[in-house]
Amino acid sequence: MTIGEFELIEKFFATQTKQRNDVALGIGDDAAIVTIPDGQQLVITTDTLVAEVHFSAITSAYDIGYKSIAVNLSDLAAMGATPSWVTLALTLPCVRENWLQEFCQGFFDLAADYQIQLIGGNLSQGPLSITVEAFGFIPFNQALMRNQAKAGDLIYITNSLGDAALGLLNLQEKVTLSASDKKIALAKLNRPEPQIEIGSKLRGIASAAIDISDGLLADLGHILAKSNVGALIQLEKIPIGASLLHTLASDDALTLALSGGDDYELCFTVPQEKQTALEKALPKNLYHLTCIGTITSQKGLDLQYQNGKQYSGEHYGYQHFQK
Amino acid sequence: MTIGEFELIEKFFATQTKQRNDVALGIGDDAAIVTIPDGQQLVITTDTLVAEVHFSAITSAYDIGYKSIAVNLSDLAAMGATPSWVTLALTLPCVRENWLQEFCQGFFDLAADYQIQLIGGNLSQGPLSITVEAFGFIPFNQALMRNQAKAGDLIYITNSLGDAALGLLNLQEKVTLSASDKKIALAKLNRPEPQIEIGSKLRGIASAAIDISDGLLADLGHILAKSNVGALIQLEKIPIGASLLHTLASDDALTLALSGGDDYELCFTVPQEKQTALEKALPKNLYHLTCIGTITSQKGLDLQYQNGKQYSGEHYGYQHFQK
Repeated sequence: MTIGEFELIEKFFATQTKQRNDVALGIGDDAAIVTIPDGQQLVITTDTLVAEVHFSAITSAYDIGYKSIAVNLSDLAAMGATPSWVTLALTLPCVRENWLQEFCQGFFDLAADYQIQLIGGNLSQGPLSITVEAFGFIPFNQALMRNQAKAGDLIYITNSLGDAALGLLNLQEKVTLSASDKKIALAKLNRPEPQIEIGSKLRGIASAAIDISDGLLADLGHILAKSNVGALIQLEKIPIGASLLHTLASDDALTLALSGGDDYELCFTVPQEKQTALEKALPKNLYHLTCIGTITSQKGLDLQYQNGKQYSGEHYGYQHFQK
Repeated sequence: MTIGEFELIEKFFATQTKQRNDVALGIGDDAAIVTIPDGQQLVITTDTLVAEVHFSAITSAYDIGYKSIAVNLSDLAAMGATPSWVTLALTLPCVRENWLQEFCQGFFDLAADYQIQLIGGNLSQGPLSITVEAFGFIPFNQALMRNQAKAGDLIYITNSLGDAALGLLNLQEKVTLSASDKKIALAKLNRPEPQIEIGSKLRGIASAAIDISDGLLADLGHILAKSNVGALIQLEKIPIGASLLHTLASDDALTLALSGGDDYELCFTVPQEKQTALEKALPKNLYHLTCIGTITSQKGLDLQYQNGKQYSGEHYGYQHFQK
């Protein structure tokens, strides 16, 4: 290794980021200085990706860079926020410039899609780990929270579920996939698209929202717990990912769609009187939303088949600590 | 391990933090929501502590928790900012509740001293590592930056230098210390006091500032490079830490004070016409500040003894990546 921390920051990070007018001071001082627009609140979230826990040795540096921002933008999307800046705390065992170059490409490609500026961070030596903190704006009191779902609200999912979990099973050599299914599943696992646009269009319409990172049942469970309500889910309506549908038997596919992690879709609730507003804001010909059930005043998750049969599969989402 | 991520957050973090009025939504949703006061800019910094790199296996959990905030507050101090919130991304190999309890005590003790609220974070499984992001306010255009030092400005240091580096040498069994010196040196190493009060009083007075984390020469070097100036340092004036003075011969003590890391004191520059304002804002009977030299238009660091002799010791500060 022939390059120091400050040269690395200059070479790979300081010069590649977009410049925004609301950043008074970016990379290169003790701290960054930013300005928040009038009438807006600041939304802040952070997520860490750890090598061998959140990604494997064969994950490309591009995908790691991309995903380290994507998972944070997904949290901003779930608040209805518009992204503005990120910081990056990167811990590397050693400096491999090729790796860093690729990492930065993934990182800055996604950042550029959303006009995001990297305003600061930290480089340390140690086991590979990436902590991104993402910032966004939301007009006062318009954020989508977890605790405002009410009995009678309809429950929606963006796009489809389970393909990312299938991609992980494939990497773990637990399922074999056709070339085209593998492409879909790994894209979903490694390059999830944060639902920023849908999130921001849900302001004033959705009563509650969360991003699905630990599996639908686990994450919907957070809305139910915080809102002190329950839910009735119609299992036939769960939108199952394309590669998953092709690959597993329907019961297994459903289990993975309900409980697999890493979807980064949104789960949100909409009061019935807001249905028209929802269809106007997010027309069916442009956005793929599926109503999967209803919030109930009775607590608990009621997972029903159309014939009245109860779901009997695996209920639990990703556990952050192995027991 | 018998406790999940969400129970851990609830038990150790959500309930222990101070509540501030400017936090609309704290721990427990997809993101935090905060409000920035009118007329203020937001100052943002982040720093990571990695096990076996930034602290050793014998460092107490209390000290790790304390220092993970302290090093970030030191960056805010160097901007002249008033701290408001922190986030914490904590990666743990396993959950040991005793360790977490102690860690949180150190973390929240220091946070409480500065009225700081923990507004969010992330818990992951992996090699022990702590990334804190700290936030503070500064009135518009009053931040102390690195790039505004001018020839003729006087260079100051808060308190004294080198005791933390001596503490590290002692932990590495490279020097033996008396019980009282060891107490001083390890306190300086493990529980550095962020110079928030002095930083905020320097607004409108100092032309540039930095916190000394990698050694005085390295960090002053950043001010010089960013401001496009040089400095003449009078070596006899360097304020050497008490335990260091007791322990090492004067040449070695000076070298450690100039180049040792982990001081977390401030180095700042003051235009000569602001001397009176400085003495009024930070009276000598209350604050220990030392003028160690002058900014020069000629580039480079000129380290002189009173007799005109040049310094010939080690010049370099902490290298973040071992070569």
